[in-house]
Order: sequence, then structure tokens, then C-alpha cells
Amino acid sequence: MFDDFKLVEDRPVYIQVKDYMKWLITKGALQVGERLPSTRELGLLLGVSRNSIIAAYEALEEEGLTYVIQGKGSFIAASVPTSNTVSPWQLDWKSRMNEQACLAVELDRMKHGIRATKGTISFTSIAPDETLFDLDNVKRAFLDRMAVEGNILLNYGYAKGYKPLIDYLLKYMERKGVDLQGKDMLITSGFTEGLDIVLSAIRKKKHGSVLCENPTHQTAIKNFKIHGFDITGIPMEHDGIDLGKLEQALLERPYDCAYLIPSYHNPTGIVTSAEKRLTLMQLLSRYRVPVIEDGFNEELRYSGSHVAPLAALAGQGNSVIYLGSFSKVLFPGIRVGWVLADRELIDVLESVKRARSIHTSTLDQSLLYQYLYNGNFEKYLKKARAEYKRKYEWTKECCEKYIPFQRLSGSGGLHLFVEFTPELDTRELLEACSRQGVIFTPGDMFYTNGKGWHTMRIGFSRVSEEDIENGIRIIGETAVNMIAKGRERK
Amino acid sequence: MFDDFKLVEDRPVYIQVKDYMKWLITKGALQVGERLPSTRELGLLLGVSRNSIIAAYEALEEEGLTYVIQGKGSFIAASVPTSNTVSPWQLDWKSRMNEQACLAVELDRMKHGIRATKGTISFTSIAPDETLFDLDNVKRAFLDRMAVEGNILLNYGYAKGYKPLIDYLLKYMERKGVDLQGKDMLITSGFTEGLDIVLSAIRKKKHGSVLCENPTHQTAIKNFKIHGFDITGIPMEHDGIDLGKLEQALLERPYDCAYLIPSYHNPTGIVTSAEKRLTLMQLLSRYRVPVIEDGFNEELRYSGSHVAPLAALAGQGNSVIYLGSFSKVLFPGIRVGWVLADRELIDVLESVKRARSIHTSTLDQSLLYQYLYNGNFEKYLKKARAEYKRKYEWTKECCEKYIPFQRLSGSGGLHLFVEFTPELDTRELLEACSRQGVIFTPGDMFYTNGKGWHTMRIGFSRVSEEDIENGIRIIGETAVNMIAKGRERK
Repeated sequence: MFDDFKLVEDRPVYIQVKDYMKWLITKGALQVGERLPSTRELGLLLGVSRNSIIAAYEALEEEGLTYVIQGKGSFIAASVPTSNTVSPWQLDWKSRMNEQACLAVELDRMKHGIRATKGTISFTSIAPDETLFDLDNVKRAFLDRMAVEGNILLNYGYAKGYKPLIDYLLKYMERKGVDLQGKDMLITSGFTEGLDIVLSAIRKKKHGSVLCENPTHQTAIKNFKIHGFDITGIPMEHDGIDLGKLEQALLERPYDCAYLIPSYHNPTGIVTSAEKRLTLMQLLSRYRVPVIEDGFNEELRYSGSHVAPLAALAGQGNSVIYLGSFSKVLFPGIRVGWVLADRELIDVLESVKRARSIHTSTLDQSLLYQYLYNGNFEKYLKKARAEYKRKYEWTKECCEKYIPFQRLSGSGGLHLFVEFTPELDTRELLEACSRQGVIFTPGDMFYTNGKGWHTMRIGFSRVSEEDIENGIRIIGETAVNMIAKGRERK
Repeated sequence: MFDDFKLVEDRPVYIQVKDYMKWLITKGALQVGERLPSTRELGLLLGVSRNSIIAAYEALEEEGLTYVIQGKGSFIAASVPTSNTVSPWQLDWKSRMNEQACLAVELDRMKHGIRATKGTISFTSIAPDETLFDLDNVKRAFLDRMAVEGNILLNYGYAKGYKPLIDYLLKYMERKGVDLQGKDMLITSGFTEGLDIVLSAIRKKKHGSVLCENPTHQTAIKNFKIHGFDITGIPMEHDGIDLGKLEQALLERPYDCAYLIPSYHNPTGIVTSAEKRLTLMQLLSRYRVPVIEDGFNEELRYSGSHVAPLAALAGQGNSVIYLGSFSKVLFPGIRVGWVLADRELIDVLESVKRARSIHTSTLDQSLLYQYLYNGNFEKYLKKARAEYKRKYEWTKECCEKYIPFQRLSGSGGLHLFVEFTPELDTRELLEACSRQGVIFTPGDMFYTNGKGWHTMRIGFSRVSEEDIENGIRIIGETAVNMIAKGRERK
């Protein structure tokens, strides 16, 4: 005994000793009533100072694991009953999971996608490039805020969110043209939680039905399905959703809501034009379909004039639920998003949020607030935009040079979308490319109707310029070969 | 125009100017094509340096809100369409909310409880006393971790959680006696999210039914109801749940699961004895009912020997889902909890978690990890235990002195539970006390069967010792009066 103790460097020694002794008690190596070695003895055995042993023994006593008899030493007070006291039984948990949980597994892309191994050129991510992060400003923001109200930040906050952040974001949205009259805001743990909370609160007319662009954000498709909504996807044109097809769909049946990504649409990268936004909102207003607007990456404009979000076009109306997040532009690790919507709706969503997770991390919220307040966001955005713009243009150039696409879309953001002629299956292409060390996201997972087998998304934010060219060259050459072989076979 | 600009002190001036100009554009005070004042002119008008105006104009151009004609100046490129372009329509969102969302509102205690006004002595909270927080160690932990891997912390993490924290907590649970074979862990945004995720994943036999102690944690009751479970509450004895009544219930119908709080049970403060824990687990094992164990505050022991959690008693079995959190002991603002359970189950819950909120704040997780690793938790706990123990004993003494209770329970933790004789209605008592500036939590909300009108919970963690005595004296005297009057009436 005592010969398998190993010290690590930067953790208090007495805690390591206490944890070790506790582990010996737990596994039954030390039994109830047994006397512990003297502090001097154990110090020698473990090779640590006697003071550390004394502190460790005190901590064990504090936890009720030992008791002291004056002049005699420390004795084990408790031991964990061994497992034979309750006959262990095994459930088949998988068979006890409901339909929603099984769907969540089935549609969990992280569990079924191709993983990048070391050295792979991966175009699958549209997360930001972490080397751009301005850590010093993040630290500054944290320390600034802790200095102002550290105690408060660490205690319970409010389900609605951290007040200074809400106030800041309300003004931020007002400057995007949103009429705040009758509106309110709920802070969520990122965009995804916002969407999930909204979907879990909406009462479904008969079967639950949602309209969206096709293709669209995979997480949204997943959550529509988990929440039991039928999905009607409307094809995309170069400047946004196909309004003719949208009206056809609207004539056919009623919808609970429409989900739209007007800027840097995921996965196509298309920015819905200002004109189309207006007509779109007029159309949805006529058919009385409320909108869930995904404000995804609208901060990432590289060029062109400012376009107002749908929430601004709704004016005094309350039909738009705007979901915002800086995750893809700023720091995804900080899980903060927001829902801007009708005040009465927010009041209900606040209770749903409280029932789910009480509130979003106050530390994340307050750090984000202080970072924004300090003016770091603008500075960071300037740097990030310049960097991503360069990569965007380079990726586009490479795609145009190497890839035999039928349509290439993406007016900015962190990804491009490629459509081949229908005979090319991008799952097969992916397999062939991954053997050559290049991966991307096959497009079918973004389609609402099981189609899109000839499409793919290329995320470039985290790929070096050299790898961008090499990777796209490989994809392009492989595609050219596959198309040629396919034609031969015919 | 330009006369309502107000500078705040500690935010970059150019950003304030940019935001102000953007606001003027948004509200239509500056129209498309209009020329902005020269930088010199605006500088004078707003009373800020010309350099700030130049930087602000650059930022406006960057956002696509203005364009520059060389030698002529900056012009407005975009304006937000005014609201008359889409005829605004109003939905009645409340009528579009589903049953679960309405239940979340109805059962939202924060919206219906009595709020403490300034000067009120409030016994409603069981949150920690924030003056105990060791902010310097929290800052240190943050900076330590940021220094190690700041970039990674700010980018996406994993749905399962932050690996170093998971490894730390697995060992922590092992030292509590839990057999880790076949087990795994999911990090959640606090206990509440853990419970919510588990409940949302469990397939219900017929109607969905859960066994629990009566009274029990109000949030749990709320979430059982929202998730559509029937609740069967089993009365509490002085050392835990009434095993006879439990067996009766088990004979009557099958249950999907049992929810139990063995330590510092909320609201009664009872610690289930080691013997009862064992018999309880044997009983539930015999009837094949899996357990959701709420590890609430088991770290807060003031005296007595260590008691193993139910998860440890299950041995190699996989029937216990352990929900842990340091929120009530450490920092509630840091939203981190954990689910320790069967590996296959965790695999499903991981996908559910991913669909809901991608992952828990990495900052919160990594800060907590580093704080634990640095050995701060033990030091903090020692201080907190001593402080809370003193308050606990003092509160108990005051209750015994002033309150005409029938039963007083609570062997530690942050609250005591009072049962009066059935004729005293604690809602009435609360009303009378709140007029005298004292509030507490009436006990009925903790009951699964609409009873408990004669009970109340007294949370003392955030009340000063002076206020504890004054408050409890007022509650006691008011109760004595009410009981006397009630008897007169008869």
C-alpha cells in the first residue's frame, strides 16, 4: 500500500494526498476503524512533507471520512459499502429512449460525419479562425467586469439575461432599423438554444409545418424534425428564395412559421437582396405566416451596401422572431445568443428558458458585454473581415480555376456552395477525396427533401491559403475524373 | 440635428459617433444620397476630436452605410425602409403557445412569488452568500487557463463537455465510491439542464410516471409536469423517504423512474441515513425502477460521517443517473452541472444536448476546472462550511426559541423546513409577515399533491445573523397570534 502515489506538479500537495487517501478508502484498501499511519510515517512513505500530511488528515476529518482519538491517531470513520450489498442490475437504456431522443442521435452530424485526421485539409468547418482572436482584450473585458461586480456575476442571474447586455443589444438592433416598440429580448445559450426554445413553445396547427429555404441550416432541419414539424423547402435563386414557388406553397396549406436566413445563407452563402426581402415580407404578411429570422453572420459583410434584416422590415408588426448570435463572427466558445421578438412572446420564452437551464452563463454574458462596450468588437471585426475577405476571394478564385461546377454561390461569409451536374454524387466524391486527405461537407444534409446529392459546402475560415488551393485542386481534379468516367460508362 | 449626442466616459469616442450616426440613418433623419457634414464640421458640432469623426466615418463606410466620393465627402448609401413598406400585422402570440410553454409560465415561481423589496428580511433564497466568494482565485483560474489555451477556449467545444473537467469530475465521483465501469459523463448548463435533458429523452410507459419524495424540489416538480409525467410523492420521515409507503406505491403501478435527493433534501433539509439508502436501493432494484439522483449540496456536510451517494450503492449496476452541480456551494453564475450515468445513455443525451445548445460555455467549464485543479474548492468549502454552519445553528436556535412548530427539520445545508399544525396556513402567515417586512417560501409549492399548506422553508444563507433573529422572531410571533386567533374562533 501507498506505493502507487504519484505527485503532479502544480496542484496543492495536501489535496493530492487527501484525494489519494480518499480513493484508498473508497476502494476498500482502508477499512472502517483502521488506524491511519502517523503523519510522520506517511510523509516518509509518500515522499511529501509532514505538513502536507497534517493538512490532508484535517481535510479527511472535515469530510467525515476519519475521526481523531487524542493521543492515538486518525481512524477511518466511513467506508463505501462494496457493490455486493445491492445486487447490481443493468437496464437497456437505449430501449428506454423516446422518439425525439433517437432522432437527435440519428440526425447528429458530429456522430456520423467524416472526421478530420491529422494532416487532412478540412473544409467542413465554418467556425472562426481562432488565431484571429484578440485574447488580451477578452482578458481585459473579464477583469474589467469582475472589478465592477464580480460577486454579482458569480451568483444567480436572471432567466431573461444580463441586463447591461440586453440593453446594449436592444440598441444594437435598433440601429439595424428594428422598431423596438412592443418588443423584448431573451438571452440564450447561443443561436441553437434560441431556435430550440422557440420551436418547443410554438403550438402546432394540426401537424406542425414550417417553410424554409432549400437547402438550409442542418441544425435547423434537425430541430424541426425533433420537434415534429413538417418541413417545406423552397428552392433558392441567386438573390434569395424563389418567390413564385413560395407563393405556390403558401396557397397549398397553412404554415406555423417560416424560417429564413437572409444573410450569408447557410449553406449557399447567398445574401437575399433588399428588394427580395421586401417582397418576401409582403408575401408572408399577406398569408399571415410569422418569421423566424436567423441573423447568421450578417455582421460579416465584405462589400456592398447595408441590408436591413427582416425584423426591421416588419416595422411595428410583431411577426418576426429574430435570432442573433456573434458565435460565427466572434467567439463560439462563449455561448451567447439572443431572441428579439414580441414582448408577450418573450415573456413566455423566458419561463421556458428558466425551466430548462435557469439562465445563460453570466460570465459569458458579462464578458461579451464588456468586450462590446470597450469597443473591441469593431476593431476585431475589421481585422476578421479583412482576413476572411482575402480567404473568400482566394477560395472563389480556386473554385473557378479547378472545380467543374454548374453553379457556385456565396457572396461572402465563411463558406461557398458548389452545385455539380446531377450525375455527380458528392458523397462518392468525398470518399475519393478523403483518401487523398481532403474533406468537405456533402450538400445533401442541408436539403429538406433528401436531394442535393450533387452539391457540397466548402468552409474556408480555418484553412490556410496554401491548403485552400491544394485542397480545391484535389477536389476539382477528382470531380473531373469522376465525371469523365461516368460519361464513359454511358 | 446633432444636438442630442451624449458622450459616455469609458467607451471609444469614434464608436459612439458611429453608433449615433447609424441611429440617425436608421430613424430616417439622414436619407439616402445625403451628404454627411465634413469631419471638421461634425467634430465641432459634437464636441469631439476630428480624428474620432474620421474613424467613425471609416467605420460607417466599412459597414456599407456610406460611400465616399473623392473630394466631395461621405454620402448615405443605405437607409432602412420605413415601416409603411410592409403593412405591419400583429399576431396574438400567447394564443400560439403550446401546453408545455403555458405550463412553464404557470409554474414559474419567479413570476408568481412575493418579491423582496429593499429592507425586507428574505428567507426565500437558498443561493450562496456572494460575500464569501473568493474572487481573486476565480480571476487567477481564468487567467491561468487562458494562458494555457485561450484560443481553444473561445472556439467551439464538444457537446459532451470540456475534457479536462470531465476527467476531473469522473475521478471526483470515483472517490465518492462510484464504480465508473461502463459509465460516462455529460456536462450540462447546471443541474436544471441535466434534469431537463434526461426527462426529455426518457420514453414513457403509457402515461409517464415518476416517484419522488414529498415534498420535493420545486423545479423538479415543474419539469416533471412540463414533460408530462404523473408524479407520485412519498412522504418523508426524519431519516428519509418512508420505505413502507414507497413499497405500497411500487406495488400499485409501474414507474419510469424515481427522483431522489438523498442529501440536504430540498426543502426539508433531511439527509437520508446510510442504512435507509441501502434499503431504498435494494427496494428500487427489486422493482426495477431506475433512479435520478440529485446530488444537491452533498458537499455541504457540517458534521457527521461521510455518506455514499446512491450512485455508489448501485455498484456495477447502471440504474442510477447522478446529477451533480456545485452551484449552491460554489458559484451559481457559472452554469455547470454534470450527468454521470450509463455510457450508452450518455451517448444519447450527448446528442440531445447538441441539438439544444451545442455545448455548455467552455469558459465556465474551463474556469471551474482550473479553480478545482488549483485546490481552491477545498479552501473555499472550508470557509463556506464554517460560515454556513454557524448560520445554520443560529437559525435552528432561533426557530426553536420563537416558532411554534410541530416539526422542524434540516440537518445542515442552507435551509430549514418548518411544519406547523395543519390549521395554520403559511400563505396567510406569509402575507401577515410580509406586511412586517419578512418573507419566506410557503411550503405548498414543494408538494406533489397540492398539500403542505402548513409548511414553510427558511433559507438563511444570505441573511445576516441579526436579521435571522429578527425575522424569525417576527414569523414566530405572527404564527403564535394566528394560531391563538384560530383557536378563539372555534
